[in-house]
Amino acid sequence: MKLLIANRGEIAVRIIRAAKELNIPTVAVFSEADREALHVHLADEAYCIGPNPSKDSYLNIPNILSVACAVDATMVHPGYGFLAENAEFAEMCEACGIQFVGPSSYAIRKMGIKDEAKRTMIESGVPVVPGSSGVVTDEEAVELAREMGYPVIIKATAGGGGRGIRVARDEDELIQGLIATRKEAKQAFGNGDVYLEKFIESFRHVEVQVLADQFGNVIHLGERDCTIQRRMQKLVEEAPSPAIDETTRRLMGDAAVKAAKAIQYSGAGTIEFIYVPESNEFYFMEMNTRIQVEHPVTEMITGFDLVQAQLEVALGHPLAISQEDITFSGHSIECRINAEDPFMDFRPMAGKIDQYIVPGGMGVRVDSGLYAGAMIPPFYDSMVAKLIVHAPTRDEAILKMLRALDEFTVSGIKTTIPFHQQVMAHEQFRIGKFDTKFVEKEMSLAK
Amino acid sequence: MKLLIANRGEIAVRIIRAAKELNIPTVAVFSEADREALHVHLADEAYCIGPNPSKDSYLNIPNILSVACAVDATMVHPGYGFLAENAEFAEMCEACGIQFVGPSSYAIRKMGIKDEAKRTMIESGVPVVPGSSGVVTDEEAVELAREMGYPVIIKATAGGGGRGIRVARDEDELIQGLIATRKEAKQAFGNGDVYLEKFIESFRHVEVQVLADQFGNVIHLGERDCTIQRRMQKLVEEAPSPAIDETTRRLMGDAAVKAAKAIQYSGAGTIEFIYVPESNEFYFMEMNTRIQVEHPVTEMITGFDLVQAQLEVALGHPLAISQEDITFSGHSIECRINAEDPFMDFRPMAGKIDQYIVPGGMGVRVDSGLYAGAMIPPFYDSMVAKLIVHAPTRDEAILKMLRALDEFTVSGIKTTIPFHQQVMAHEQFRIGKFDTKFVEKEMSLAK
Repeated sequence: MKLLIANRGEIAVRIIRAAKELNIPTVAVFSEADREALHVHLADEAYCIGPNPSKDSYLNIPNILSVACAVDATMVHPGYGFLAENAEFAEMCEACGIQFVGPSSYAIRKMGIKDEAKRTMIESGVPVVPGSSGVVTDEEAVELAREMGYPVIIKATAGGGGRGIRVARDEDELIQGLIATRKEAKQAFGNGDVYLEKFIESFRHVEVQVLADQFGNVIHLGERDCTIQRRMQKLVEEAPSPAIDETTRRLMGDAAVKAAKAIQYSGAGTIEFIYVPESNEFYFMEMNTRIQVEHPVTEMITGFDLVQAQLEVALGHPLAISQEDITFSGHSIECRINAEDPFMDFRPMAGKIDQYIVPGGMGVRVDSGLYAGAMIPPFYDSMVAKLIVHAPTRDEAILKMLRALDEFTVSGIKTTIPFHQQVMAHEQFRIGKFDTKFVEKEMSLAK
Repeated sequence: MKLLIANRGEIAVRIIRAAKELNIPTVAVFSEADREALHVHLADEAYCIGPNPSKDSYLNIPNILSVACAVDATMVHPGYGFLAENAEFAEMCEACGIQFVGPSSYAIRKMGIKDEAKRTMIESGVPVVPGSSGVVTDEEAVELAREMGYPVIIKATAGGGGRGIRVARDEDELIQGLIATRKEAKQAFGNGDVYLEKFIESFRHVEVQVLADQFGNVIHLGERDCTIQRRMQKLVEEAPSPAIDETTRRLMGDAAVKAAKAIQYSGAGTIEFIYVPESNEFYFMEMNTRIQVEHPVTEMITGFDLVQAQLEVALGHPLAISQEDITFSGHSIECRINAEDPFMDFRPMAGKIDQYIVPGGMGVRVDSGLYAGAMIPPFYDSMVAKLIVHAPTRDEAILKMLRALDEFTVSGIKTTIPFHQQVMAHEQFRIGKFDTKFVEKEMSLAK
């Protein structure tokens, strides 16, 4: 038994830790820039898989699988990002007789195509954002918008990355928008098909962690609230959500289990929902078929190691726990510490970490690949550390996070630590009343 | 409200963390050697209290109280060691109108005099090691030894620091021992009085954490097993004890509460017991009237912050929890990381920390004053960091500790990390069968 970790940074370190505690030997891979990285230092073996750009190393499937075969790795953990939701990579691992630590390529594909995922959810009885059941004509769109009420959002079926999307607040805007979106989509993607959805202006991002084995057992581990975002990037996550009540928690958990069962899911996954506090309604947004950055907040309130669970499932073990065994204790918050200057429009920073003092003590967890003297290369994601706290109540967790942020010393590069201090001190955050536009609307981001 | 911390190192950092989370402003004091220490960096204010030797700084009561008065500190936390069990210091704080974070000077004195402590325990019905009820004549000693059976231990009432103590395995040794001990005690302490106790050769050190408020409410937070020692110095602690059953746990907890009530104790304290697995009996050893080094293992399995509780009690608040609220979850182990070379008879090391990489991730807690570039001065205790883990079971906690020790990188000085790796890997430790002589008897301490 041997596990190759096809990733870098904090998540590679996280996976090595989980494997070591299960006595599973580990193999790290690294790009040239990461020769001195912590994951390389901590793994039992480590091999260079190519030059710095991701496409040449961490996305280089042949190089990664060559190492895996050469060292007789029996499992590959993809982490998140890079190859984590690449169905071809999962298939190639399977073809090489290497266990991919994640769901089947079937499940990855099923959730990767957003239309199809939504259709699957509707069929399984999971609530989705109201809208057309598929592609619409202009007449159908106008008709549907009258029924649903404005605002609505026009989405190109082939769209992505923020393109092929338009909001309409009345019928005039809808008619103009349909023309413009079709034109843009045809030019950009060669396909002018659009569909229509109710546009939800103010919502919270609430997601449910699920875990499934290879025998059809599926449980959920409660929700996380990831509403604090900037340009769709999550910055602060917490569990439980301060916005939902017990009934909604139960309904959302049930819906998430249904969603996972609908695609014969196995491993750890997350069902993301749009939650509207005013109406107390939630809608399926998408499913992430991998471990997520914010998984620790769930671990803190359940005491359950999700990455070890992933490995156990990959080894063919049935789930060691059932839904009734999952209990929640206290409140957990995670701040993503990015190597970015929050006062310069979050401009990414690279360079050498000079002084590095991590917070410690009771209820404080740091997941990171940093150390004093480490280099942050300019080639990869700017998230370099996760600071996680756990305390009996949300108020205490916020005070603990402020204490820990205050202790966290990183010099040599700028980080988002001061940003998080402002979030934690913000009245709206403290009372738990905010939506996904909080950062843009409520924060001044002045020094 | 303002708290002065009359200590250094990890415990000063620990106390500052607790205070910050309660929004209590903090004042650090430091010797000249500790100018760059972490506790100085983390406190809101910091003042030098004198030259490096402890007697000139951390034991210098006038200097410490001068700072406390000058900055209008309303509380003083003594940590452990130094002035923590100094009744005069507690009294002088009281006289200055400063709240001493700890029990009354009455309680400190009552437990500081070992004879009197034992007598108080007997009166309260707490089991003590069988022996004479006080000073004995030679004839009484011989008589008592015949009744109790050998081996016995002769102790000078004025003895201490390992002097004025002799084990006797038969009547001849007893008679010789009485003469020798009286002579030694008379010479050393000017007092030849001795008392007699049954000598217990093989035992475990098991202690119970108690917590009391100023209104007579006393609870216990379960036991810690501190059997892994070297020359009476604890090295590894865990909670719960792998050696005692539920009935003993309850009896021991009840005895500890009785002991605390007997001296009108307030604050956090620990009742240490000798536990004999063969007979399943336990005896009062002594009470520590302060927070202990090993308090975190109790915090990990109860989720309860003991240092914050100390501060709450000092502020005159009643206990926020009752005995029924205390529940235990999982298993916790602490390794004391000392700046000592375990392969050179644990010779203390001083110097500059070069590389310093702390373990992190789920269930790992580090309480320390170290960082890359920090100096370890030669003047103080060699314990420089505490590595604490928490996992669902003892087996998992041991694996997690091994993983964390493996990650822990300290260069520039030698530490006891390799020693702890040998303890964790030792079969006798793994199965939980060992006594206080484990390190001397079972470990080879070869590289």
